[in-house]
Amino acid sequence: MIINLNGRLVPEAAARISVLDRGFLYGDGLFESLRVARGQPFRLSQHLQRLRRGMAHLKLLAPWNDQELAQFARETVAANNLPEAVMRITLTRGVGPRGYSPKAANSPTLTMTLHPAQLIAPGELEHWKLHTAALRLPADYELAAYKTCNKLPQILARAEAEEHGADEALLLNTADFVTEGAASNIFWMNGASCGTPPLRAGALPGVTREIILELAAQRKWELIEQNLTRDQLYQQDAVFLTLSTIGVAAAVALDGQPLKLSPRVGQLHAAYWELVNRECR
Amino acid sequence: MIINLNGRLVPEAAARISVLDRGFLYGDGLFESLRVARGQPFRLSQHLQRLRRGMAHLKLLAPWNDQELAQFARETVAANNLPEAVMRITLTRGVGPRGYSPKAANSPTLTMTLHPAQLIAPGELEHWKLHTAALRLPADYELAAYKTCNKLPQILARAEAEEHGADEALLLNTADFVTEGAASNIFWMNGASCGTPPLRAGALPGVTREIILELAAQRKWELIEQNLTRDQLYQQDAVFLTLSTIGVAAAVALDGQPLKLSPRVGQLHAAYWELVNRECR
Repeated sequence: MIINLNGRLVPEAAARISVLDRGFLYGDGLFESLRVARGQPFRLSQHLQRLRRGMAHLKLLAPWNDQELAQFARETVAANNLPEAVMRITLTRGVGPRGYSPKAANSPTLTMTLHPAQLIAPGELEHWKLHTAALRLPADYELAAYKTCNKLPQILARAEAEEHGADEALLLNTADFVTEGAASNIFWMNGASCGTPPLRAGALPGVTREIILELAAQRKWELIEQNLTRDQLYQQDAVFLTLSTIGVAAAVALDGQPLKLSPRVGQLHAAYWELVNRECR
Repeated sequence: MIINLNGRLVPEAAARISVLDRGFLYGDGLFESLRVARGQPFRLSQHLQRLRRGMAHLKLLAPWNDQELAQFARETVAANNLPEAVMRITLTRGVGPRGYSPKAANSPTLTMTLHPAQLIAPGELEHWKLHTAALRLPADYELAAYKTCNKLPQILARAEAEEHGADEALLLNTADFVTEGAASNIFWMNGASCGTPPLRAGALPGVTREIILELAAQRKWELIEQNLTRDQLYQQDAVFLTLSTIGVAAAVALDGQPLKLSPRVGQLHAAYWELVNRECR
């Protein structure tokens, strides 16, 4: 793999950072994961907007503007022979004095890495089993609005799900409401409506979540942000997950019990891939 | 600085890790910060016990036993001409496949770094101003029991405190109770009693917190774990913070209003340093 490190392309073996980097010490950073299709990063500018919101909140300054970041992304794709891929962009506060204070940590670290897309066939709808994680996310938590490098809750939830033979974790919040998947946002369909938890439940504002809301609105589906309990998911016509790496995945079981599946999930997934194919060519 | 990286001493410039290390990507790791006095790491075994509890919870396996870790710590101190110092031990899950799942991430990264002690004079009681951070910690949060590399809440709280001219942040939890400082545990004294928040409030089980509870018990002070509101701190005879790097710091102001100070805080601080000097020689 060829990796972009602080704007320069280097071989993977040379893409190394100090053990004093605050990303490594404290998770003091932000990241984005996005789909690359036909060599084009999909919705890069939308991902960079979320990154900028996180940078503003963390007061994490970086010397690169969006045009430069987009140029780095294109160069990273061009340097790797991997047109169907997942790109990860990481920005941390770099090295600073010891301790939590970010004062005087003024040289951020930027990396862009490219990974094979896990997808078996682009556009094919995956059927996932969910497991409800024991760990609860805090409801109404200001840091949930940003894709930070503090991802232990999601890691532990995903590991727990895999131990139970599931593909993805369902995370509830401290108020016992459905919040998100470990690496995905969650939606459901019922009659004419399409629902998802409000962001204040503690869900990450996913770029794919935004795109799915756009696609549902185009179809004139009634959009509802609402708090559901885990048990209420079984009563929906369908439950699905959204994530930038594959778009939409149908949730077909939760904690060993089946969930219903509507053909509209496949339609939404197809619409997502039409959009990807239209914008990335 | 000479750094111990995976059991080997290397110069700081060579202490570098992959940008694919899960510590850097997700904060998927644990750490300990401890005082080194007269070249001896103080209460290393107690810190290693906490590290082991975290490893068990995160299912983070490492090939080194406590004797080896203690040997690495001694070698790190010996290699640096810094008998009064703060040691940081970091253990992350290392490099693995892309994504949150920790499966197949089997080569952890271990670092030990040594930093000059911030202390002006060992044993001198510092007087700190506190600022209440806007961010709330989740109450009753299972991950609060471990010193993980997910420290953005503490970083943002500390930065906010510094912007307000304070030395340390006071963190409340989502139930609005006093929980901890950004890098410290909090205590108060009132009459014959010495109080601190229960760990289930969301406070880190600090090693210095445990030692202070031992010292208070030796003095036959009445120990109370209780939930206080921010406003109730002003009614206490004294408020103080505990942290391994300096022991005890008196909190003399909170959000610009003075807190009371009892001579017993200085006595406890002196007792802490007697213990350090007795055990590290």
